[in-house]
Amino acid sequence: MIKVGIVGGTGYTGVELLRLLAQHPEVELTAVTSRGEAGTLVSDMFPSLRNRVSIKFSDPATSSLDKCDLVFFATPNGIAMQQAQALLDAGVKVIDLAADFRITDVGEWEKWYGMSHASPALVAEAVYGLPEINREQIRSARLVANPGCYPTATQLGFLPLVEAGCIDTDHLIADAKSGVSGAGRKAEVGILFSEAGDNFKAYGVPGHRHLPEIRQGLTRAAGRPVGLTFVPHLTPMIRGIHATLYGRLTKDVDLQALFESRYAKEPFVDVLPAKSHPDTRSVRAANLCRIAVHRPQGGDTVVVLSVIDNLVKGAAGQAVQNMNIMFGLDESTGLMQVPVLP
Amino acid sequence: MIKVGIVGGTGYTGVELLRLLAQHPEVELTAVTSRGEAGTLVSDMFPSLRNRVSIKFSDPATSSLDKCDLVFFATPNGIAMQQAQALLDAGVKVIDLAADFRITDVGEWEKWYGMSHASPALVAEAVYGLPEINREQIRSARLVANPGCYPTATQLGFLPLVEAGCIDTDHLIADAKSGVSGAGRKAEVGILFSEAGDNFKAYGVPGHRHLPEIRQGLTRAAGRPVGLTFVPHLTPMIRGIHATLYGRLTKDVDLQALFESRYAKEPFVDVLPAKSHPDTRSVRAANLCRIAVHRPQGGDTVVVLSVIDNLVKGAAGQAVQNMNIMFGLDESTGLMQVPVLP
Amino acid sequence: MIKVGIVGGTGYTGVELLRLLAQHPEVELTAVTSRGEAGTLVSDMFPSLRNRVSIKFSDPATSSLDKCDLVFFATPNGIAMQQAQALLDAGVKVIDLAADFRITDVGEWEKWYGMSHASPALVAEAVYGLPEINREQIRSARLVANPGCYPTATQLGFLPLVEAGCIDTDHLIADAKSGVSGAGRKAEVGILFSEAGDNFKAYGVPGHRHLPEIRQGLTRAAGRPVGLTFVPHLTPMIRGIHATLYGRLTKDVDLQALFESRYAKEPFVDVLPAKSHPDTRSVRAANLCRIAVHRPQGGDTVVVLSVIDNLVKGAAGQAVQNMNIMFGLDESTGLMQVPVLP
Amino acid sequence: MIKVGIVGGTGYTGVELLRLLAQHPEVELTAVTSRGEAGTLVSDMFPSLRNRVSIKFSDPATSSLDKCDLVFFATPNGIAMQQAQALLDAGVKVIDLAADFRITDVGEWEKWYGMSHASPALVAEAVYGLPEINREQIRSARLVANPGCYPTATQLGFLPLVEAGCIDTDHLIADAKSGVSGAGRKAEVGILFSEAGDNFKAYGVPGHRHLPEIRQGLTRAAGRPVGLTFVPHLTPMIRGIHATLYGRLTKDVDLQALFESRYAKEPFVDVLPAKSHPDTRSVRAANLCRIAVHRPQGGDTVVVLSVIDNLVKGAAGQAVQNMNIMFGLDESTGLMQVPVLP
Repeated sequence: MIKVGIVGGTGYTGVELLRLLAQHPEVELTAVTSRGEAGTLVSDMFPSLRNRVSIKFSDPATSSLDKCDLVFFATPNGIAMQQAQALLDAGVKVIDLAADFRITDVGEWEKWYGMSHASPALVAEAVYGLPEINREQIRSARLVANPGCYPTATQLGFLPLVEAGCIDTDHLIADAKSGVSGAGRKAEVGILFSEAGDNFKAYGVPGHRHLPEIRQGLTRAAGRPVGLTFVPHLTPMIRGIHATLYGRLTKDVDLQALFESRYAKEPFVDVLPAKSHPDTRSVRAANLCRIAVHRPQGGDTVVVLSVIDNLVKGAAGQAVQNMNIMFGLDESTGLMQVPVLP
Repeated sequence: MIKVGIVGGTGYTGVELLRLLAQHPEVELTAVTSRGEAGTLVSDMFPSLRNRVSIKFSDPATSSLDKCDLVFFATPNGIAMQQAQALLDAGVKVIDLAADFRITDVGEWEKWYGMSHASPALVAEAVYGLPEINREQIRSARLVANPGCYPTATQLGFLPLVEAGCIDTDHLIADAKSGVSGAGRKAEVGILFSEAGDNFKAYGVPGHRHLPEIRQGLTRAAGRPVGLTFVPHLTPMIRGIHATLYGRLTKDVDLQALFESRYAKEPFVDVLPAKSHPDTRSVRAANLCRIAVHRPQGGDTVVVLSVIDNLVKGAAGQAVQNMNIMFGLDESTGLMQVPVLP
Repeated sequence: MIKVGIVGGTGYTGVELLRLLAQHPEVELTAVTSRGEAGTLVSDMFPSLRNRVSIKFSDPATSSLDKCDLVFFATPNGIAMQQAQALLDAGVKVIDLAADFRITDVGEWEKWYGMSHASPALVAEAVYGLPEINREQIRSARLVANPGCYPTATQLGFLPLVEAGCIDTDHLIADAKSGVSGAGRKAEVGILFSEAGDNFKAYGVPGHRHLPEIRQGLTRAAGRPVGLTFVPHLTPMIRGIHATLYGRLTKDVDLQALFESRYAKEPFVDVLPAKSHPDTRSVRAANLCRIAVHRPQGGDTVVVLSVIDNLVKGAAGQAVQNMNIMFGLDESTGLMQVPVLP
Repeated sequence: MIKVGIVGGTGYTGVELLRLLAQHPEVELTAVTSRGEAGTLVSDMFPSLRNRVSIKFSDPATSSLDKCDLVFFATPNGIAMQQAQALLDAGVKVIDLAADFRITDVGEWEKWYGMSHASPALVAEAVYGLPEINREQIRSARLVANPGCYPTATQLGFLPLVEAGCIDTDHLIADAKSGVSGAGRKAEVGILFSEAGDNFKAYGVPGHRHLPEIRQGLTRAAGRPVGLTFVPHLTPMIRGIHATLYGRLTKDVDLQALFESRYAKEPFVDVLPAKSHPDTRSVRAANLCRIAVHRPQGGDTVVVLSVIDNLVKGAAGQAVQNMNIMFGLDESTGLMQVPVLP
């Protein structure tokens, strides 16, 4: 049994991690810390976990996280970078679900996240936890930077094209739509039911923090800098990301075959038949990315549709997938939930 | 392994049954019939089941349902009553998720359902599949009538009070609210997104088919005829039933202790602490009923709040629970999914 | 033209008041105050008002509200009671959309609202602004206490029965469901989209502030103290209240005729034909209450269904209706918007 | 007073037209026809219109539509083309809200709509009713083809760029998102609440009927054929379209000034300040298009965000705007409703 601790279990990625870990056969949940909620039963805050998670939130100061085999950070940005080194020194592996270790260029990170980085050395060591690219490095990693939700959906959709060198990588367009849980469990007016309900809008068009993360990943895959326009939108649903991706083809390829072959061995990426339109609910509450590729009217524009559940393949599920890889378990252990539809 | 067939797998109770059975360790799914969809892969209709359910819908005429150990009817009312006898004769057990065998009084059934009953004899044999009342009879039943969704939430909420004889059973009130999936996967204008969304309404106030079913169950528990006003409402969510129940107390009792003691050994009924308000999402996609009991301002009116997922404890989950009991399995087998929140 | 000021225009009742007043032919909007937003264009905060409301939020300290003919308070509870007297002394009429002047019994008010009342004398003077009961007093009032949303829907539904003396007023039950905008435009976790969406729950069952307000109104109508169980629920829609009301009949009356005759001359109460089920969207964005009355199965329980838009007939619309009465205008002036459906 | 008839008033564009016409000071509603609902009070089908629309649906065969000054067709595609000629011959003006007269190239129309055109001659006469382009021709038109919803939002967003000749018109991309009411009031499984709710998906990527309509409009504006990739999506809200438009800049222009100047005199197009993100609710239930233009990170990709209410500026409101122009009224008559927010 893997002894697991969670730092910051009061947000949506935290409760989703708890849902998945409570059903994982190889995990023993040891501690869930929260400064504000120390002493409260986890299941008092999240009644969905009654009779399934019996521990209380504990004070970070007194929790023996260094006795764990693995600690997940489900915290806001800027926390893991302060605490990861001590845990690693104590022999504990770390998966950060926030953004602290995702961007290799520390200066770039500091510009987008508006703070100084506390552990530049660890940035260099951390492995970007997208198993479909970095499986082998994850296997031996001490520290994994779990990808963002938009970056997961967008990279998985563009990768086959970029790796095959068949699109103009100077002008990629990612038009992405997210459910509201992607904004977190924070008391903010903009994500109230009466604000975000029955409404649709773009946000962050001048610049969003996931832009450099996606650009970095696609640049690695392309072997040269890519140009990307990234427009996120808020859509009135709870879970789900739908990325609609556009690129100009530079070569004639069998797109369907390209995608199917790229992901043939991936347990959590499902390429749909030609002419399909994946809906986000087809992956709701499951660790899956479903993708369809189109070439409308046979023109030179390729359109990729990529859907995930932002809290699962876009956060907690991918983190568990990374854990499974790091600890030598079957990659699917505890992640075989069938999507909930309707 | 239990060989299972499903008649009519194209509705919401059908796809939910498939979701649960695909994760059940003791079930081998043998056939899913549909006249209209014969030959179609089940997962083409429900992409959430891709790579998890590999069979096609088959024609009822040519499907060897009589080779199954158990057949679920996830059909409209009036189908199971025509086909159950032949299956029983072939030694197949049957669970009907529709209403054909729920009402013992055949005349009453015919009045509310507007058709003649094709198998009155089987009505007498069928066991009403609410395990919290009929567990022992279910164990040895050949034919189980799986309860309706409103009746499950309402009966579980009223039972402790009625059994204890501490409320006026002549004037029970059940104000129930259902998500739209309760109306089924039918092409009807009234349940379109643009009709049922951002809207709330009562329906069936003059009389709803679940009224006689609830009244029958509570009458058995009371040992005398009960009077019930039942008002169902449609609420703009997909899954979930919230029953708000009102009764006049005739004796002074410790309500909290009464409820906790009644359900102490029930694996799928959870009595919340005093002063709680269960929300429907706390049972979303899980086979659970959560209940809270209140006595506002210490008056003589008791208020019970009872929530279920209409497709799980209110339909497919309860059916699987009944199957587990009928086949001597642990009652929780395949039913331990943690609710999906948010 | 009536010179109108609004104190606190940044909440939902504020923006709704602005929507209605911007279309009112006899109103000149003079000032909208907000401490936090002083200097911001109202239409920068609410883009729906672009090109329709051209003024900025102004600082309460420097706004000449005493030059207005009428000031609306669209503030949290406890503000109007501190400022109303000075305005009244300056000859300004006041309508408070909060609760400061709704409860005649100051001690009762202080118990439910958890603060000392700053103007008990004004409580005695204030007229409760439900035109269907108090039209004549409103006409000559200086200070109107605009009713709460639940109290409006509930009282209008019960009034014909209580006034006619045909139900047991010791055991009234009001099961009410509200859209989320009823909770206001406040940064609180419980009303986030991801919390309140696809979810249904009761709240405040042990006691809600609208209970004493409803009880007071029905007690006046009955001429004796009434007993009421009031259970509010949160439903995943933005606007709308649906009150389902239950009472025991003590006399045989023609319920349909009773309701139609009671509201025959009311411009904003619409009694539906027998057997109807009003939906909340049928009054969306309009100053209307629609009511249906039922007697299920001919028993002795009467069921009333009463719907309003909580922000219009339950708040801003009713306030404008009161203004029209106070200033001798036709009561419907500026309030004839057709409901928005779908 | 303009005598107005409506053919086919039972869909969403029909009821929205009725909402607007009921509040229009210069309109007398003479007839609303429906084969299926003849004899039913319009307000029995749409209770939102109680006491505001008093007529019944009438049989098309016996309705004297030829006595009207103007007839709106709010019918499925293929109806107006059969009936318009007779009305025009009788001196009645016609506005078709369906697609029969939108595409000038009859062969192209027949390909996309899958039927033979019954009145090719009228196609040549019809004026495409986008006032921001064709105001003068609309003024003298007998027959107006009211634009589709996606085409309205998309063309208004692209027009300034295309007219100014500052983008590559060979590779335009329109990523559009629609509320579910855009699919109409039809009994179809795909738009049920339980299917379209809490879900997001693209559809029609291989080809959608609005593609040729948009291409035609932009081709006229460009003076040469344009290339367009159009991807529509279904988003879980009732009303609203959000078009996110992408193009490659070929010249350096002041985008903000370009848009502001293009629409300076348009009463129903509102260009937002730089860096804005319009949300669909800011135009809910109002005849408005709000637009923002961005150039992310100063690159060569322009991003335009364009929102409308699909039932108003995208259908019924634009039709009334066209009527006002055709009959010499102030263009805003009856169209000054303030958007409903929240």
